[in-house]
Amino acid sequence: MQEEYIENLIEQFRTLPGVGYKTAQRYAYSVIEGSRERAEKFSYAIKEAKDKIGFCKVCGNFTDKEICNICEKRNRKIVCVVKDPKDIISMERVKNYDGVYHVLFGTISPLEHRGPDQIKIKELLQRVSADKIEEVIVATNPDVEGEATAMYIAKILAPLGVKVTRLAQGISMGSDLEYADEVTLSKALEDRKPI
Amino acid sequence: MQEEYIENLIEQFRTLPGVGYKTAQRYAYSVIEGSRERAEKFSYAIKEAKDKIGFCKVCGNFTDKEICNICEKRNRKIVCVVKDPKDIISMERVKNYDGVYHVLFGTISPLEHRGPDQIKIKELLQRVSADKIEEVIVATNPDVEGEATAMYIAKILAPLGVKVTRLAQGISMGSDLEYADEVTLSKALEDRKPI
Repeated sequence: MQEEYIENLIEQFRTLPGVGYKTAQRYAYSVIEGSRERAEKFSYAIKEAKDKIGFCKVCGNFTDKEICNICEKRNRKIVCVVKDPKDIISMERVKNYDGVYHVLFGTISPLEHRGPDQIKIKELLQRVSADKIEEVIVATNPDVEGEATAMYIAKILAPLGVKVTRLAQGISMGSDLEYADEVTLSKALEDRKPI
Repeated sequence: MQEEYIENLIEQFRTLPGVGYKTAQRYAYSVIEGSRERAEKFSYAIKEAKDKIGFCKVCGNFTDKEICNICEKRNRKIVCVVKDPKDIISMERVKNYDGVYHVLFGTISPLEHRGPDQIKIKELLQRVSADKIEEVIVATNPDVEGEATAMYIAKILAPLGVKVTRLAQGISMGSDLEYADEVTLSKALEDRKPI
């Protein structure tokens, strides 16, 4: 009994990550109940973001220019390697990181037939040689694929003499030992530091 | 350091109910990472829903026609009175309701200076007289304003001799007595039924 246009809008909201039917319905009704101006702005923002945003030529971050804001203004001697453009957002929450980024657009995954050539490792190698990069911080996820990718990058960069580091692994700040999993705890124990 | 177009899209997603910055960011990135076709469909669906959807002349439900699907196909002798068009969705989940609806577009609220004339009560009165309606089911929320509105509707419809009912109040199915509030429990006790 639902009208076609509403159903269609609900379907569109359902394509967003983690949105089920009921949430999509709430969103759709909020748009329909809202002002025409808001709906137009919303509609335009979606189209415009997709039209204008591309990838930074240097690092692979999202940008509406040829080279992104981060690459333009920051210290290019330190490069943080991430899996996806959206990981840059997470890293940027650390306010005191002043280096630039390199997006791999994936990780090495033999199970999914994705080798080093399918992700932007060659480009990283070129950047390190050309830009006289001093440190490469590998910030891939602490899972099997992320670890394998980090190991591969460390190996392939070794001949260039650049310092390659990896984000520390251990228990989360503010968490509780009781809820930490064994793998994390064992890693935290292994990497313990003098105080 | 975020690009303007992304920030703008995030702002738009934040206008949705219950969406904070981080969720809006996830949504925005999902749109930017998705295909151009999907972004266009999404953008179009928002504009189109707002452009095409208006209110049903009879009941006030959302529709793209003059009279909504429900008014057209169902038993017009039973009318369920709701506060907002979206409440129709909730009622429609009850599969065996075959009557039609009447949207009040608000409730009586002295605190917010909203009297019976500010909501569609006159229109309800006209429908009841004109369409020979047999039963009016008041399905406003079980809160102070909803109760006041229900009482007012019952009073004003009394001279017309139409049967006016109210949704039953009591403990929710599948819930636990331990967690029921006193007001609900007291109401459930008061309206107890022989088994």
